[in-house]
Amino acid sequence: MEPSIIFAERKTVEQVEEGVDLAPKFDADGLIPAVTTDYQSGELLMHAYMNADAMTRTIETGEAHYFSRSRQAIWHKGATSGLVQKVVELLIDDDQDCVWLRVDVTGGASCHVGYRSCFYRKIKQSTGPIDTASGPLKLEFTETDKVFDPAEVYPGIPNPTKL
Amino acid sequence: MEPSIIFAERKTVEQVEEGVDLAPKFDADGLIPAVTTDYQSGELLMHAYMNADAMTRTIETGEAHYFSRSRQAIWHKGATSGLVQKVVELLIDDDQDCVWLRVDVTGGASCHVGYRSCFYRKIKQSTGPIDTASGPLKLEFTETDKVFDPAEVYPGIPNPTKL
Repeated sequence: MEPSIIFAERKTVEQVEEGVDLAPKFDADGLIPAVTTDYQSGELLMHAYMNADAMTRTIETGEAHYFSRSRQAIWHKGATSGLVQKVVELLIDDDQDCVWLRVDVTGGASCHVGYRSCFYRKIKQSTGPIDTASGPLKLEFTETDKVFDPAEVYPGIPNPTKL
Repeated sequence: MEPSIIFAERKTVEQVEEGVDLAPKFDADGLIPAVTTDYQSGELLMHAYMNADAMTRTIETGEAHYFSRSRQAIWHKGATSGLVQKVVELLIDDDQDCVWLRVDVTGGASCHVGYRSCFYRKIKQSTGPIDTASGPLKLEFTETDKVFDPAEVYPGIPNPTKL
């Protein structure tokens, strides 16, 4: 199907912010950021991107589809790992340049490193000015146990992280 | 201060994903996406961007600072509206190209349109293939009452939404 049919043309700020037509803004690369949280815990699971096709497939199937920038391909989350994300609610923000997926994750993990959430480390809080003499700021792990072993779940598949 | 001192150099995938040094990846425009949720409800409040300076100020002050792409300037959230976001926890994802702010919002609103969250509309779910004959997909409001009146809070300030 032609994605443009289901997306309205962006004509006015009022229409985009206060209207009821879906009129997403895709950036110069044709992408819109997608924020995915666990619908029960509210935990942020991942931050990724969709193109028009991925958004259309997500709406049609009720399962999260993203666009992988590293692979430059549609990415049906869980197709390899089995950790599919069922979309409970799909929301869009005021200026319609970001979507929020509230999902139920089969298997309970969303991170390719093996953790439940991609956000498994927090930045240690500073009190007052940062002590720059001690070098880079430090992270603290908030999840310590992996839900799965990436080497078993993604055999022979290159790590998508880019430096 | 020089932000680069507090950020480690990105040397290996293992260091970035499994290490304890803060080594954020800023994109070609010097920005990193920032996802902001209410630390109590887990509700997604907004999606914005930080540059190195905004991230440094956020860490130093404990209050959310972003980089406004429309104004091309540091943006201390709440400086105009009074709706400051106190950072309860600041997390970073596996490949360190996105940060998650868990915040406490004075005044309870984060959206320039006046709603509590920027994500006040959901996309109506499709069951099966989308009926393209009915035109653009429809949104449904999940918040109906504004927390404040933007005309009063931002007098004479242009709406930041771009078409």
